[in-house]
Amino acid sequence: MTYDFQPVLPRGNGPWAHIDTRAITHNLEWVKRRVQSHAGVHSRVPRIWAVVKADAYGHGISHALSALWGADGLCVTTFNDVVLLRQCGWGKPILLLSLWGISETDLLDPSLGQLHVVADDTPQVEMIERWAQIAQHNRSKRSSLHVWVRAEGKLKTLGFQEEEYRSAFLRLRALADAGLLAEVGHLNHYAASEDAHALNLERQAFLQTTHGLSGPYCTGNSGALCGEGPGLLKETSEWLRCGLLLYGASALAPITGPELGLVPAMSLQARLLSVRQVRAGVTVGYGESYRAERDTFIGTVGIGYGHGVPRRLWQRGTVLAGHDGREVPLAGRVAMDCLTVDLGPDPIERVGDIMTIWGRAPNGTLLPVEKTAAACDTIAAALWTGLTSRVPLIAATSAQSQQAS
Amino acid sequence: MTYDFQPVLPRGNGPWAHIDTRAITHNLEWVKRRVQSHAGVHSRVPRIWAVVKADAYGHGISHALSALWGADGLCVTTFNDVVLLRQCGWGKPILLLSLWGISETDLLDPSLGQLHVVADDTPQVEMIERWAQIAQHNRSKRSSLHVWVRAEGKLKTLGFQEEEYRSAFLRLRALADAGLLAEVGHLNHYAASEDAHALNLERQAFLQTTHGLSGPYCTGNSGALCGEGPGLLKETSEWLRCGLLLYGASALAPITGPELGLVPAMSLQARLLSVRQVRAGVTVGYGESYRAERDTFIGTVGIGYGHGVPRRLWQRGTVLAGHDGREVPLAGRVAMDCLTVDLGPDPIERVGDIMTIWGRAPNGTLLPVEKTAAACDTIAAALWTGLTSRVPLIAATSAQSQQAS
Repeated sequence: MTYDFQPVLPRGNGPWAHIDTRAITHNLEWVKRRVQSHAGVHSRVPRIWAVVKADAYGHGISHALSALWGADGLCVTTFNDVVLLRQCGWGKPILLLSLWGISETDLLDPSLGQLHVVADDTPQVEMIERWAQIAQHNRSKRSSLHVWVRAEGKLKTLGFQEEEYRSAFLRLRALADAGLLAEVGHLNHYAASEDAHALNLERQAFLQTTHGLSGPYCTGNSGALCGEGPGLLKETSEWLRCGLLLYGASALAPITGPELGLVPAMSLQARLLSVRQVRAGVTVGYGESYRAERDTFIGTVGIGYGHGVPRRLWQRGTVLAGHDGREVPLAGRVAMDCLTVDLGPDPIERVGDIMTIWGRAPNGTLLPVEKTAAACDTIAAALWTGLTSRVPLIAATSAQSQQAS
Repeated sequence: MTYDFQPVLPRGNGPWAHIDTRAITHNLEWVKRRVQSHAGVHSRVPRIWAVVKADAYGHGISHALSALWGADGLCVTTFNDVVLLRQCGWGKPILLLSLWGISETDLLDPSLGQLHVVADDTPQVEMIERWAQIAQHNRSKRSSLHVWVRAEGKLKTLGFQEEEYRSAFLRLRALADAGLLAEVGHLNHYAASEDAHALNLERQAFLQTTHGLSGPYCTGNSGALCGEGPGLLKETSEWLRCGLLLYGASALAPITGPELGLVPAMSLQARLLSVRQVRAGVTVGYGESYRAERDTFIGTVGIGYGHGVPRRLWQRGTVLAGHDGREVPLAGRVAMDCLTVDLGPDPIERVGDIMTIWGRAPNGTLLPVEKTAAACDTIAAALWTGLTSRVPLIAATSAQSQQAS
């Protein structure tokens, strides 16, 4: 992969993650085009909430922000992230997915700008009513508040159950009618968005819950955007939320992001710290977890479970070795600070070479994160967000993302 | 658990980890006593390297430092951590486990104090020789350098193979004889330290590699300290390294740390964000991964895989609910920001209650981290070090650790 600029890699024995911000921009455009193509000629094109929760799915919220100026709004889960995004200069709407622990005085801060919040239960509706009362007496100071009422749906985790939904919505609607809220809308999550039939059943349940109530809809998730969702969800999609796809992974296993036309934004890399020959029959690693079946070379790579690589990756996982990204299997248990790979009897790699745990090797060869995830029975989002603070995130724009754009 | 001071918990919907620094001090004393009791009357008691790599096994290096002033030295893997510990006022020895990416000029910094480094290969021996040459001309500026030569042993990852070990050691020994190094010693890692027979075989191989060479030995790890190691390793233990035990977990599954007399230092906690009834047969969570077998109540807890909880915990995992720490099973897939538990048909917990993912509930009830680790096929150290930057670490001293001390 040729870089626009030569990124400065961290010194020492630790790993890093390259974040290709141009890939994130490309993926946002991909989502926009997809949503646009499914909107009818006369219908309004849904707006996109770009989801940057969990430090932008582990990509670094400030890296992601620099790539997402074209989004209609950003979606987070913590109040701190709202404040951070405003401090970084984001002026468009922000959707805060949880009001838990937030008080009416927090919401009075005028620097919050156009804030959208989600009401999940009656205490939160009451908190918003108290906010409205204070804000009414203090017009110059209040932020502009949009409220989305969450329907519990199939997840059974947060939001109003069907029998409570209507009364909660109408209480908030009354505040909007009195000019105290900007807008009140309907929000849900799909539990099984990848399957069109299941998605349709959930959609119908959501339409029944909200039947006869005015207001816009906010729904989505990447699963629904990958599949037949954009066509199916026309009635319920003034706003669509999208996270996973923005970072270049697919929600439709076994199809990968690149197979859909997305560009992976993260490449997780580390150094080859040693290369050594072991004889057939010799064991490697803690617990003698790997036995060489032939004379071979074992490479030690400077990344381990203390950086967020799942320990179970060793049983079926592979990494890309060196500049050209030759795919080699892990060999022996992942340790806290390093992992071992079987470089085979005739390795071309040398100590110091870059090893790619997922994403693109220096020459552009790709190991899709979905493949790594499948090898340890998890999902791309869990690998990305599971990286610890010991992995620096380094912005880098690749030639691949330029070609793709 | 009654606290000496009421810790300020983070607001909002996110989790936190309590770090009981007094427990870490207690565990260090436990290790010291154990090592002392195995040393003969006339033999010297080994000194202890307290391992604080990976942000003190995820406990926060500054929290750990405040508890470890009684250690003989601290052991890290990155040069940055050496600098940090010196800035924090640690004046005793530091063992840096990897010289990878470190240059001779880095080592000239006099503020590094009494630094111990590990030589793994010939380029590193050459770097140390260059350092010695410069330092010789610049006596006032150099740090005091101790070098440990690492024997590859059974791990087959880092360190010198048996046939190269002797010449590397003698090259460095010559520098020490010329007064340019403080000391040169022998260092290894045990691949299977939990089993006394395997440990003994590895010990004999290490003695053979170092046969006839003078100098102190540095070995250990928690596995060797839990089991019969302290007695077995007398000849090879001027310095013993210890990590896992300091934080209160055992290396001898299925025995837990508390069963050995250790006090767990970390309690991972989050809030109960919602409680709702579901009918028998209803599914919960993404992918309809859990089906209620009876009418029950599902609780949603504000912690997920984006904080470092393994996704696979849901299949066999439990958490402690509320002040009294009632043990309840997970129900449905762990999501990025939350997880769900089955509170049963008659829950006493309320929204806002503290839920303990591992460690101690507020009343002191313990869920050993080893049990959580077993439920998701991993180890305590992987759970601790796998916490992401979205989990604040909060120092708190518990009544339990006071009683134990």
